[in-house]
Amino acid sequence: MTVTEQVLATASASFETDITRWLNWLRIPSVSAQPQHNADCIAAADFAARELAAMGFTVEILPTPGQPVVLAHHAGSNPSAPHLLYYGHYDVQPAEPFELWTAPPFEPQIVEGPHGPRVVARGAVDDKGQVATWLAAFRAWFDTTGSMPVQITVLLEGEEEIGSPNLEPFIVAHRARLGADIAVISDTNQWDIDTPALTTSVRGMVYMEVHLKAASRDLHSGMYGGSALNPINALTAALGQLHDAAGRVRINGFYDGVADVSDAQKAAWQALGFSEHDFLGEIGLTTPAGESDRTALERLWVRPTADINGIWGGYQGAGSKTVIAAEAGAKISFRLVPGQSPSHIIAGFKHFMDSHVPPDAKLSYVEHACAPGLEIDTNNRFVTAARSALEAEFGRKPAMIGCGGSIPVVEGFRRVLGIDSLMMGFGLGDDKPHSPDEKFEIACFRHGVNSHIRFLSDLLDIK
Amino acid sequence: MTVTEQVLATASASFETDITRWLNWLRIPSVSAQPQHNADCIAAADFAARELAAMGFTVEILPTPGQPVVLAHHAGSNPSAPHLLYYGHYDVQPAEPFELWTAPPFEPQIVEGPHGPRVVARGAVDDKGQVATWLAAFRAWFDTTGSMPVQITVLLEGEEEIGSPNLEPFIVAHRARLGADIAVISDTNQWDIDTPALTTSVRGMVYMEVHLKAASRDLHSGMYGGSALNPINALTAALGQLHDAAGRVRINGFYDGVADVSDAQKAAWQALGFSEHDFLGEIGLTTPAGESDRTALERLWVRPTADINGIWGGYQGAGSKTVIAAEAGAKISFRLVPGQSPSHIIAGFKHFMDSHVPPDAKLSYVEHACAPGLEIDTNNRFVTAARSALEAEFGRKPAMIGCGGSIPVVEGFRRVLGIDSLMMGFGLGDDKPHSPDEKFEIACFRHGVNSHIRFLSDLLDIK
Repeated sequence: MTVTEQVLATASASFETDITRWLNWLRIPSVSAQPQHNADCIAAADFAARELAAMGFTVEILPTPGQPVVLAHHAGSNPSAPHLLYYGHYDVQPAEPFELWTAPPFEPQIVEGPHGPRVVARGAVDDKGQVATWLAAFRAWFDTTGSMPVQITVLLEGEEEIGSPNLEPFIVAHRARLGADIAVISDTNQWDIDTPALTTSVRGMVYMEVHLKAASRDLHSGMYGGSALNPINALTAALGQLHDAAGRVRINGFYDGVADVSDAQKAAWQALGFSEHDFLGEIGLTTPAGESDRTALERLWVRPTADINGIWGGYQGAGSKTVIAAEAGAKISFRLVPGQSPSHIIAGFKHFMDSHVPPDAKLSYVEHACAPGLEIDTNNRFVTAARSALEAEFGRKPAMIGCGGSIPVVEGFRRVLGIDSLMMGFGLGDDKPHSPDEKFEIACFRHGVNSHIRFLSDLLDIK
Repeated sequence: MTVTEQVLATASASFETDITRWLNWLRIPSVSAQPQHNADCIAAADFAARELAAMGFTVEILPTPGQPVVLAHHAGSNPSAPHLLYYGHYDVQPAEPFELWTAPPFEPQIVEGPHGPRVVARGAVDDKGQVATWLAAFRAWFDTTGSMPVQITVLLEGEEEIGSPNLEPFIVAHRARLGADIAVISDTNQWDIDTPALTTSVRGMVYMEVHLKAASRDLHSGMYGGSALNPINALTAALGQLHDAAGRVRINGFYDGVADVSDAQKAAWQALGFSEHDFLGEIGLTTPAGESDRTALERLWVRPTADINGIWGGYQGAGSKTVIAAEAGAKISFRLVPGQSPSHIIAGFKHFMDSHVPPDAKLSYVEHACAPGLEIDTNNRFVTAARSALEAEFGRKPAMIGCGGSIPVVEGFRRVLGIDSLMMGFGLGDDKPHSPDEKFEIACFRHGVNSHIRFLSDLLDIK
C-alpha cells in the first residue's frame, strides 16, 4: 500500500466524522452582509482555526476593519516540496427569502437526491463545503503521516460574499508570509456529476448601489402627480436603458478591451456539448437573455453582463397607496471579463445614470465590489498534477472551463503576490449557491476530499 | 340673534370638545390597506356611528365584503327642505415609513405653526378631520335646535384609501335610501389659508399592480448572468418606457377622449396666480416633471398621469448580494381626466407591458382601483348656497378649482344615483395627506365647522 493509498483509506474511514464537522460549521450563520451576524462570522473563523490547529498548523485569527482572516501555516515534512496557498471563505450569502427554504437554512439537512445523499444548507457548497474538502484531505494526511506532505499556508477570509473589501490590504500587509508557488481554490464547479473540471478564467465584478432622491418627502400622487418628479419613474427610466434590443450594455465604453474568443477555444467549448436548452429548462426558462449574437458558453464565461440585483422604492405592502416616494434605489452588478477596467466601468455607469435622469434627481452611489476578470496560465506543473489527480479520482479527464462567477482574490494574488491560482472545485450547476435550498452532493464532497489528497501526492511525485 | 347665529355660538362654545372628539378618532389606526388593522377599521366606524346616534340619527353599521359602511339618517325638522347625502371615509392611508414622523402617527399632536395650532396625525385631514367638521356642524345644530335643519343621510365608508372596491355594489343595493338631492363631500382643499374653494372637477384613477416572474427560483448572477432572464432588468426596461421625452404617457390610446381646456378656463386659472415655482420649492424641487407643453394647473387638474407608486425585487438589504431574483413587481397608478375610459386604460397598460417584455417573462396583474375623472355642474342652488356660506365665513369669494386627486364616489353617485356632488373642503396644499406628519390646521377646522353650519342655513333661506 503506497502512502497515497494509506491516506485515501484514512479519509474513507473518517468520512462520517468529516461530514459531521462540515455540518457543524454550516450551523453557524456567518452572513457577512448583515451586521447582526458579526459574532457568527467570528465564530465561523474560530471553528476553522481550531480545526487547523488540531492538524499541527500554526494558526492566527487576524483582525481586519471587517471580518477577521484565518491565517495558518504548516512547514510540511518535505522541505523541497512546493509551497501552496489554500484560499477559501467562511462567510456565506444572506439566506433571505427564508420562506422559500424547505428547512431552516442554518439547520443542515441530509436529503436523498438523484446522485445519492446531499447536504442542504446556506453555505453547503459556497464555500464551507468546498473548503471542508481540503480540510478533510489535510486531516487524512495528518492522521496518516503526522504532517503535511508539502508546505501549506491557509488563508480563510470572511468577506468574500460582500466583495472582499479588506482582503487586498491584508494580502499586501502579509505578502511575505503568503509567498507560495501557487494558490489553490475550491469555489468552482465540476463539469457534471461524473466529470471533473479545472476553471481557467473568471469574470470580475463591479457592484454598485444607486440612490435617487427627489422631493424632500413622500407626496400624494393626486396632489403632485404630473408636476413633481417621481423617483421610481426616473430610476426605472434610466435603468431601463441599460441594455439595447440585442442585449448589449449601453454604457459608453463598456466593451472596451473585451477580446473575441479564438476559434480554437470556441471549438473546445463546442465539444463539451453544453445544452443551453437544458440549462435554462432546469430553472423554468426557454429563451436565452443577454447578447443575442453570442454562443451560450461565451455569454456565461467570457462576456460581460449588467444585472439589477435589487430594486426598491415607494409602497410595497398589501393593497394600494397613492404615494410619490421621496426616493428609490437599486443594486446593480456588472460581471467583467479580462481586458475591462473596473474603474472605467464605474465611471461609465455613473455617467450613464447622470445623463439618463431629469433635473431634480439627486443621485448617490455606494461601491460594493470592484475586481477585473482574468485568465489563468495552464502550462505549469500544478495544473498538470491537478489534471492527473482528477483523472485518477474520476476516471475521466477534467474539462478545462470558464467561470461566469467572480473570484476577485485570483486577480489579487496575481497582481500582489505574482502567483496564479489553481481553481479545482466540486460544485454542480444545480447546487443553487446564493439561492434557497443551496446544496452540495456528498458524492462530490467525497471526490473533492480524494482529489485534494491525490493532488498533494502528485506534487510529490513530480519532485 | 338668528338661529344661524345661535348655532354658530353653540359651535364656538363646544369647539374644544369637538377637537377632543376628532383627536380620539385619530387615535384609531384604521388603515384599510393592511389586514392587521381590520379591527381598527371596525372601531373607527363604530366611533362615528355612536356620534351620529347621539345627534338623533338612525344609524346602521352595514357589512361589506371589506370594511363596513356607516349609514345614518335624520329626517330633519323641515319636511320641505332638501335631502343631503354627506359622504366621507373613516379609513386612512398606511403610515409607513414610521421613522419619518416627528411623533407616532396615531398619537395626534397639537403643534404650533405659522397659521396657529395644527393637528399632526395620520388622517388628521384625510378624511377624519374633514368629516369631523360636518359632524361638529351637525352637533351644533342638534344642541341648539334639537334636530337637523334639513333631511340628512350620512354614508361613511372604510375603503376609500384602497379604491372603494365595495362601495359601488353598496350604493346600488341601497339606492332607494341614498336618493338625496345632492351629495356633500369634504375631502378637498381651500385655495389658501384665507381663501375658500369649491372643487368642480376630479381626476379618476386606475391603480394596477404588476408581477413579473422569470426563473423558478433565485439564481446566482455569476452562474446565470448573461443567459437567464433577469425580471428586474425586464420590469425596469418595460416601465422605463412608460413616458416619452416630453413627459407624455406612451400607452396606446392613453389620451383618447381627453379634451383640451377652454381659453376661458385657462384665463380663470391664470387669474388664481398659482406659482409652480413655490409649489415645487416647498418640497425641495425646482423643475416640473410631466408634460412639458402644458401649464402647471392643467397638469395638476385636467391632464392624466402615470406614476409608479412602488417597486420591489431582489435583494434590498445591507451590502451586496449577487442574485438574479425569480420575480419583481410594481404598483402603478394612472390619474384619469373626464373622457378617458378606465377599462380602456387597463387594457392599454396590459398590452403595453405584454409588448415590452421578453420571452419567459410571465406577467400577472391585480387591479386596485378603476374610476373615471369628471366635472361637476355648478349651476344649481346647492353650489349657490355653498358659495354664499363660504363667502360669509371667510369674507372672500371661493375659488372654483380642479382637483388632481381622485374621489371615485363622485362618479358613482352621478352614475348610480343621478346626483352631483358638492366638494367643499378645508385642507391646505401643505397638509401632507398620505405622507409622514400629515396635519390639519385648527383654523381650517373651525372655518369648516362654521361653513357647514352656514351652508345648511343658506339652504333654508333659499326655500
